[in-house]
Amino acid sequence: MWKLLRRPGSSAAKEDKKLITAVKTIAGFTPANISLYRLATLHSSKGKDSGGFRESNERLEYLGDAVLGAAVADYLFKKYPFKDEGFLTEIRSRIVNRESLNNLARKIGIASIVQYDNRNVQLQKVILGNTLEALVGAVYLDKGYASCKKFVIDKLIQPHFDLETVVNSDTNHKSRLLEWAQRQAKEIKFETTENHQGRGREFSVIVFLGTEAYGQGYGFTKKKAEQNAAEKTCAMLNI
Amino acid sequence: MWKLLRRPGSSAAKEDKKLITAVKTIAGFTPANISLYRLATLHSSKGKDSGGFRESNERLEYLGDAVLGAAVADYLFKKYPFKDEGFLTEIRSRIVNRESLNNLARKIGIASIVQYDNRNVQLQKVILGNTLEALVGAVYLDKGYASCKKFVIDKLIQPHFDLETVVNSDTNHKSRLLEWAQRQAKEIKFETTENHQGRGREFSVIVFLGTEAYGQGYGFTKKKAEQNAAEKTCAMLNI
Repeated sequence: MWKLLRRPGSSAAKEDKKLITAVKTIAGFTPANISLYRLATLHSSKGKDSGGFRESNERLEYLGDAVLGAAVADYLFKKYPFKDEGFLTEIRSRIVNRESLNNLARKIGIASIVQYDNRNVQLQKVILGNTLEALVGAVYLDKGYASCKKFVIDKLIQPHFDLETVVNSDTNHKSRLLEWAQRQAKEIKFETTENHQGRGREFSVIVFLGTEAYGQGYGFTKKKAEQNAAEKTCAMLNI
Repeated sequence: MWKLLRRPGSSAAKEDKKLITAVKTIAGFTPANISLYRLATLHSSKGKDSGGFRESNERLEYLGDAVLGAAVADYLFKKYPFKDEGFLTEIRSRIVNRESLNNLARKIGIASIVQYDNRNVQLQKVILGNTLEALVGAVYLDKGYASCKKFVIDKLIQPHFDLETVVNSDTNHKSRLLEWAQRQAKEIKFETTENHQGRGREFSVIVFLGTEAYGQGYGFTKKKAEQNAAEKTCAMLNI
């Protein structure tokens, strides 16, 4: 491990020691290849350019996202042996959605290890969530799938998600979407059409962010159509 | 292994032997727990109901989809060490999209092992693709992640995808979408708006399937806006 550390006594070596301690606290094990964790915590604002390629944690985030999805899929598959795939997919998305990951990342202290350019970038929650995904990618490469799955389940899911609450939460998609839009300072519009046909009446709602149409929802009440449209929009935007 | 087989000489035991042979051919190893593969090849049309729950391969499909995503993510991550996450995400989706999996499933002979009710159901390609995902789920549970990844890479990806071609294919999203709509007998509409502002001109296109709005695309030419809208629609529909 030590050969991967930087020159002893240098500030870089001190940074590494701090990172090793933080990974131990967050993940419960000692990193073998510290350079993976250095990369996982590197926001692009702080990355060096070389040959048209900017060093950052974004490739590890791509990998971690996929591995996290598989680990949580496996966990729920075994936890709920008599639930169908619709249920499993929904519960998984309530756990690994962008918002939920951002909050989790904040709770476990990702802010203390992320390296970013604080002169040009605000440490938004999404940076924390992305860094958490990249950390999962680093653990996967460093320790293999089984250990990574154990990290995900024992350190991320079990201590931070009460599954009974997650399952029973009657998700209000519209308020989730509105909260997101407010945080992102996006102009959001729900365009409702009331359709009459014979004696029946149906509502359709289209969500617009700025001028762009996102999810369209339907229902026999305006509220249901709105929820339906908001749910589709949240899915499209990975909120 | 044999204790999991059905009564020797029975037609069920013969089915198991046939399935073992087929899995050996497709995956290159002997299944340990044949009941997983029985379930993986069971379309819901043939599944038994018990206690409000219908036995089918759909749970394994959910699991296999996630594991396949992780295995292919890992493969591309290592194959292209200097490509960014946008590239990796795009190439992965070209490999594991619905259409591509359906074709792959047909090629490797999934049709010979899927159990479905042929009086009520046509063996559509999507059933093959879903069964292939369920098979990946079964291999994962039976042999673990590392063997499953090896199966995915050695038996599914490397023999059936020429990565150079995949990377260089200048995907025509509109024709991909139109082909899909034709197969699904869906009414599809591209609604184009030409926007003028000052001396500039921009096009926006919305794709409608029936009356439902899907992707909206933009561009300085009509063709680019159409491709953009079609690409977003393909992503939304996982085509």
